[in-house]
Amino acid sequence: MTALDLLFAPRAIAVLGASATPGKLGAAMADSLASFPGPVMKVNSGRPDPDRGFFPSVGEAAAAHGITPDLVVSCIPAAVTADALREAAAVGARAALVCAGGFAEAGGDGALHQHALAEVVRDTGIRVLGPNTSGFLAPHRRLTASFVPGAPDLERGPVAVVAASGGVNHALAFALAEAGVGLRLGVGLGNSLDVTQADVLDHLAEDDGVRAVALHVETAAEGRRLTEAVRRLTDRVPVVALVVGRSDIGDFARSHTGALATSWRVTRTALRQAGAVLVDDERDLVDAVTALSRVRLPANPRPGIGLVTAQAGPGLLLTDDLRSHGIQVPPLAERTVKELRELLPALTYLNNPVDTGRPSPALTQVVERVSEDPGIDLTAVYGLLEPTAVDLPAALTAARTATPLVAVVGGPVEQARQTRRELGEAGIPCAATPASGSVMVRALVEDAAARTRLEAVLTAPDTPTLPPLGPVDEHTAKGVLADLGIRTPVRRVCADPTAAHAALDDLGGPVVVKILDAEILHKTEVGGVQVGIRTHEELDDALARMPASPALLVEQMAPAGPELIVGVRRDPVFGPVLALGAGGTAAEILGDVSLRLAPLSAHEAHAMLDELATRQMFLGARGTTPVDRARLTHVLLALASLAADDAVAECEINPLRVLPDGDVVALDAVLLLRDPRDQGGSDDA
Amino acid sequence: MTALDLLFAPRAIAVLGASATPGKLGAAMADSLASFPGPVMKVNSGRPDPDRGFFPSVGEAAAAHGITPDLVVSCIPAAVTADALREAAAVGARAALVCAGGFAEAGGDGALHQHALAEVVRDTGIRVLGPNTSGFLAPHRRLTASFVPGAPDLERGPVAVVAASGGVNHALAFALAEAGVGLRLGVGLGNSLDVTQADVLDHLAEDDGVRAVALHVETAAEGRRLTEAVRRLTDRVPVVALVVGRSDIGDFARSHTGALATSWRVTRTALRQAGAVLVDDERDLVDAVTALSRVRLPANPRPGIGLVTAQAGPGLLLTDDLRSHGIQVPPLAERTVKELRELLPALTYLNNPVDTGRPSPALTQVVERVSEDPGIDLTAVYGLLEPTAVDLPAALTAARTATPLVAVVGGPVEQARQTRRELGEAGIPCAATPASGSVMVRALVEDAAARTRLEAVLTAPDTPTLPPLGPVDEHTAKGVLADLGIRTPVRRVCADPTAAHAALDDLGGPVVVKILDAEILHKTEVGGVQVGIRTHEELDDALARMPASPALLVEQMAPAGPELIVGVRRDPVFGPVLALGAGGTAAEILGDVSLRLAPLSAHEAHAMLDELATRQMFLGARGTTPVDRARLTHVLLALASLAADDAVAECEINPLRVLPDGDVVALDAVLLLRDPRDQGGSDDA
Repeated sequence: MTALDLLFAPRAIAVLGASATPGKLGAAMADSLASFPGPVMKVNSGRPDPDRGFFPSVGEAAAAHGITPDLVVSCIPAAVTADALREAAAVGARAALVCAGGFAEAGGDGALHQHALAEVVRDTGIRVLGPNTSGFLAPHRRLTASFVPGAPDLERGPVAVVAASGGVNHALAFALAEAGVGLRLGVGLGNSLDVTQADVLDHLAEDDGVRAVALHVETAAEGRRLTEAVRRLTDRVPVVALVVGRSDIGDFARSHTGALATSWRVTRTALRQAGAVLVDDERDLVDAVTALSRVRLPANPRPGIGLVTAQAGPGLLLTDDLRSHGIQVPPLAERTVKELRELLPALTYLNNPVDTGRPSPALTQVVERVSEDPGIDLTAVYGLLEPTAVDLPAALTAARTATPLVAVVGGPVEQARQTRRELGEAGIPCAATPASGSVMVRALVEDAAARTRLEAVLTAPDTPTLPPLGPVDEHTAKGVLADLGIRTPVRRVCADPTAAHAALDDLGGPVVVKILDAEILHKTEVGGVQVGIRTHEELDDALARMPASPALLVEQMAPAGPELIVGVRRDPVFGPVLALGAGGTAAEILGDVSLRLAPLSAHEAHAMLDELATRQMFLGARGTTPVDRARLTHVLLALASLAADDAVAECEINPLRVLPDGDVVALDAVLLLRDPRDQGGSDDA
Repeated sequence: MTALDLLFAPRAIAVLGASATPGKLGAAMADSLASFPGPVMKVNSGRPDPDRGFFPSVGEAAAAHGITPDLVVSCIPAAVTADALREAAAVGARAALVCAGGFAEAGGDGALHQHALAEVVRDTGIRVLGPNTSGFLAPHRRLTASFVPGAPDLERGPVAVVAASGGVNHALAFALAEAGVGLRLGVGLGNSLDVTQADVLDHLAEDDGVRAVALHVETAAEGRRLTEAVRRLTDRVPVVALVVGRSDIGDFARSHTGALATSWRVTRTALRQAGAVLVDDERDLVDAVTALSRVRLPANPRPGIGLVTAQAGPGLLLTDDLRSHGIQVPPLAERTVKELRELLPALTYLNNPVDTGRPSPALTQVVERVSEDPGIDLTAVYGLLEPTAVDLPAALTAARTATPLVAVVGGPVEQARQTRRELGEAGIPCAATPASGSVMVRALVEDAAARTRLEAVLTAPDTPTLPPLGPVDEHTAKGVLADLGIRTPVRRVCADPTAAHAALDDLGGPVVVKILDAEILHKTEVGGVQVGIRTHEELDDALARMPASPALLVEQMAPAGPELIVGVRRDPVFGPVLALGAGGTAAEILGDVSLRLAPLSAHEAHAMLDELATRQMFLGARGTTPVDRARLTHVLLALASLAADDAVAECEINPLRVLPDGDVVALDAVLLLRDPRDQGGSDDA
C-alpha cells in the first residue's frame, strides 16, 4: 500500500461544497461521483439540508453515514479551503482533492490561501491533490473525481495519465479513448502543493494494472525525486513523457502553475536518462503510450524493424518516416527472401519493406517469415482495407510471430476504426496513418534502447581533493583535473618575467604565456593570453603587452586539432548537469550541446558525443584524427565525479583539444567553488 | 475546358476486363462505376456475353449503347493493354485509366509494355492515367474509377488529392473523410506515363469547385512544368505538398515508380518557392489541407495569432507548439486587454493567450475582442467540451470576427467529433488536439506568407558575356563575376616569377599567390595557393613550394571575416538551383545550405541567408560586422542571371568573404561551361 492509496482508493468520500444546483461545480462533482460503489457524503456548510443528504460538516456527515471518509473532494472557494480541510482531517479524513483555483497561481491573496493549505498538510498529514485541478479518474474503481462532463463514461484500461494540468489530463484521457485505449488512473496535479508527479509515479509502481504511463510535465519541481521515480517505474512499466516549454512561454506558464526553475532541455535530458521515452506533442504521446500499453520489446540498443505493406505508396511513407528518424530497417536474410519469393507474385519488392502487392491472402505467412528473420525484432504492417481481398485482423492475429507486431490500417472510416479496435484488443497496436505508425514503432524502439542504458552500471564517483574555498586560479584548477586523470599541458608557474624566461628554456618553444589571477575569469578579453612564443625576444614582447598580474603561467603549446567544450554545473532543480559541446563559433551559435545528469554511467558518457550535430568533426572527418572515445569518456566521468562534491559549483574545460594521437588535453579550465552550507545542503538529494 | 476533361468528366465510360466474378478487379471496378449517371459499358474480349452486357470490344459496346465512350477504364493485364487501347482510340475513346501493374515499375518485360503504351499515346493522342494505379475519384460527378472498397461512399467536398500513388490517394481520401472533409477529385498517378502531376494541377486550376489541393510527390519528373502549375494554382487555390524521400529509400522507391532524378531537398525548395505549403507527413497534410479548404488568410508575411483557451494546460501546449515553430503570438493592445478584463473573471491570464478559465459564457465576446485587435490576423480557440458551461459551436459561430478562426476541441469522443463536424460545416476549421491545431494555424500562416513572396517581382536576368567553351581559369571566372557587379580581389596575372615580384610591388603586401591553370580545380590540395606574402623573400619561398603552372595569379589579400559559399548548378529535373551556405568545416558537416530555383525574386534571394542555421555568424554575432544584405542579394541574383545562359553548367564562389565594411568579395571562383547542344536543349524549358 502506498501513501496515496487513501487518495485514489478511498473507502468513503465526502464532497465539500456539494450542491443540488445544476451547473455548479459541486453539483457536477457529486454527479460524477454517483457511480462510486462506496459511500459518498455531501457536505454544504452554507446551505445544509440533512433531509436531502446535505450535511453541515464532514463530522456530521460521517456520523450520519457511520463511516469516516478517507477522501474529501473540495469544491469550495480558495479562501475557505484550509479551514474546511483542517476540520475534515480532525475527524479522520486522510486525503483531499482541492479543485478550486485562486491559490498561488493567481497571485495576490492566492499565495496566502496556498500557504494556509500547506500548513494544514504539515500539521495534520492529510495528503492534498491540487489545488487548481479538475481532479482525477480511476475507472476501474468506478471513481470519477472530476467535474468534467463525459469523464464518468471513460473506460477502464491499461494506461495511466500523470498530467501537470487538469485540462491536459482530461484531454489525454479522451484522446486515448478515441484511440481505443482505456484508463487505469488519470491525474491532473494542478499546483502540486503536496502530491507531486513523483508521488503519483511511486503509487503507480505498486499498481499491477498499469501497463504504460503518459507523463505531462510543465514544471519539474523535485528533480532527483522525479527521475528516481521514473527510473523505478520504467523497470516494469514504460513511461512516455511530454515536456512543455520548448519556446519561451514563461509568462503564461508562470501564471498557470508557478515559476519555471529549470530548462526544457535539462528536464528532457533528465527524464530520458531515467528511462522515459520522450515525445514532441500530445498526438505523439497518445500514439506512443497506446503502442507501449500493448507491446514492449525486450531491452535492445538498436532493434531491427521488418516492414510489410499491402500498398507500395503508403508503405514508402512509413519506410521513409522510420529511416529518417534513424530507425533500423535492415535487409532481410537471403533465406527469408527466398521463402517470401515462394509466397508472393513475381515482381513485388521483397527486401524490407516487403510489398505484397494489394492485401494478399498470403499475408499471414509473409508476416511470419519476416518476423522470423534473425535481424527483425518488430514487424510493422501497412494495409489499406480491402475486405474483399483479405480480412486484415484475422490475417494478423493468425500470424504466429516470434516478434511483436504494429499495424497501420487506412480505409473507409467506420470499418477502419472497427479494424483498429479489433487489432488493439488482440494486443496489436494499430495506427490510422503511416506517421502515427512510425511514432508507435519509434516509441517501442526507444523504450527498448532506454532499458539497455539503464542496465549499464553506474560509475562510482571518485573523491577528488579540492582546494580551499575561494577563487581558484587556472593552475590549481588544472591540478584538480590532473589528479582526476585528465591530461593538462606541461606548465610552470612563474612569479616574475625572469622565471618566465627560465620556463621557456625549460619547456622549449612554442609556449603560451598567461596571467595567473584567480580573480580574472576572462583572461583573453583583457589581453592576458599570448600564444606561439618561441624566442626570448617574443616573450619580452608578449609580457610587455600583458596586464599586470600576481603570477604568470607558461605552458607548452598543444598541436592544432578540433576542439570541444566540456563542463559541469548545478541545475537548480536537477543538480549537477554535464555538458559536452563542439568548440568554435558555429557550434556556439548552433547551441550544439549534449547534456546528461551526473552521476552517469560510462555508457551514457560515451553516447554524448554521438548526439552532437557536429560529431563528424571529432570522428575523423576530412582526414583528422578521430578522438579517443575512451579518453573523452574518462574526462566526462571525471567531471561528473568532481560535481559529486557539493563544494563544486561549476567546472568548465574550454577548449578541450583533440591531439594528433586522439587523446584530449584541457587547454583552459575554470573551477568555481561554493560553500555547501550556504545552499541549504545538497540540491540533488 | 482542359485536356483532361474527357478523363475526369467523361460522357460515357467503357470498362476493359469487366467481369461478373466477385473478387476480380474488373468486377470491383464495374461495381464502383455503377453509380455513374452516364452509360458504363462492359467489355470482356475473352468471355463476351452481350446478353448480360459484356461486349467483345469497345467498338461493339459503343454501337450497342449508341455512344462512344470518352473514357476507357482498363482492368486487363499489362501485356494486352497497348493493343486494346489502340483499338479503343480508333473507335473514338479519348482518355484511359490503366490500373494494371507490371509495366516499367516491374522491370523485365514491363518496360516493353510501357513503351508500347507510350507509342499508343503518341500515335493516337489518347490521354492515359497510370498505369499502375488504383484510379481516381470524382464524387461530385458520382464517378468512382477505383476498385478500392468503400471508395464509392466518399463524399463530395472542396479538397483535391493529387497523389503519386493510388494507395496514398485512397489513404488520404479516407483520412480526409475521417476529418470531416469531402473530396472534389482524388487522383493516383501511378507510373505517370502520360498524365502527370502538372497536368492534373492545370486541370484543377480551371475547376471552381476546388478550395485546396493535397499534393503527394514521390518523383518529380517535369521540374519547371510542375512548379509553374503550382504557382498558377496557388494564385487561387492553396496547395499543400508532402514530398517523400527524406531518407535514402531509393531502392524501394525505384521499384515503385522509377528512378529519383532529383533530390528531396531540391523538390521541396522548388514547390515551396512556387507557393506550396510544405508538410512533413500525411497526418499534417490532412490537417493543413482541411484548414486551408475552409479558410485562407490574405497575403501577409507574418500574420499575428490570437489564442483564446478555456483550459490553461492545453492552451499552453498550443502556445508552445506555435511559438517553437516561429509563429507570432503577439501581445494584445492595451485597449483589447482592458475590454477583456471587463468580460472575464479576475486573475485569468489575458495577454495572449487569453485564458477564459473554463469555457465561459463570454466566449463569443472574448473571441470578438481578440479578433479585432490590430495585431491579430487569425484567432485560435481551444476548448475541452463542457456542454453544461457553454455551447462551443454556437459560441464560436456567433462571433462576428474581423479575422478567421481555427478551433481545437477535445472531449468525449462522439460529442467532440460532432462538434468538430458542426464547426467545420460552419467554415471554422477544427482540430482534435493542440498539435493538430498548430499544424492548421501554421499552414494558414505559411500560405499567407508564400503569397507575399509570389507577389514580389521576378528579376529579369542580365545577359553576361561568357568566355568560349572549354575549361575556364580562376582569373577569367572572376572577370565574368566582376562584369556582373560582384567584387573580386585586385589581381595580376603573371607569366613568370619576375612578373609576380613586380605584382607584389604594385599591389603591396600581403598578397596571395596561386597557380593559374584551368585544368586544376583543387589548387589548394596540390599546394598551389600560398597566402600572407609580404616580402620578396617570402614570395621566392612560396614560388619554390608551388607546382609548375602556365601562369600565376597574384592577388591582394582580403581582411579576415566570416565566409560564405554561394553557387549555382543545374538540377537534372528542376534546372538551375542556387545555393547559399556557411563556409568552414562545421557548416559543411552540418549541410547548412539554403536553396532556391533560379531565376528568383530579390525577395527570395534576400530570404536565403535567414534560413541558415548559422545565420547569426553573418548578422553581427560576437561583435563582427554584419554582412551587407543588399550586396549579398546582388551576388545571388547575379549568379542566377549567369545560370540563365544554358552554357553555364556550374559556378561556385568559395569562399565569399564578408569584409569589415559588410561588402562581400569572391576570393575563389569556379566556372564550368558546357555545350548546350549536347544537352538536348535547355533542361529548364
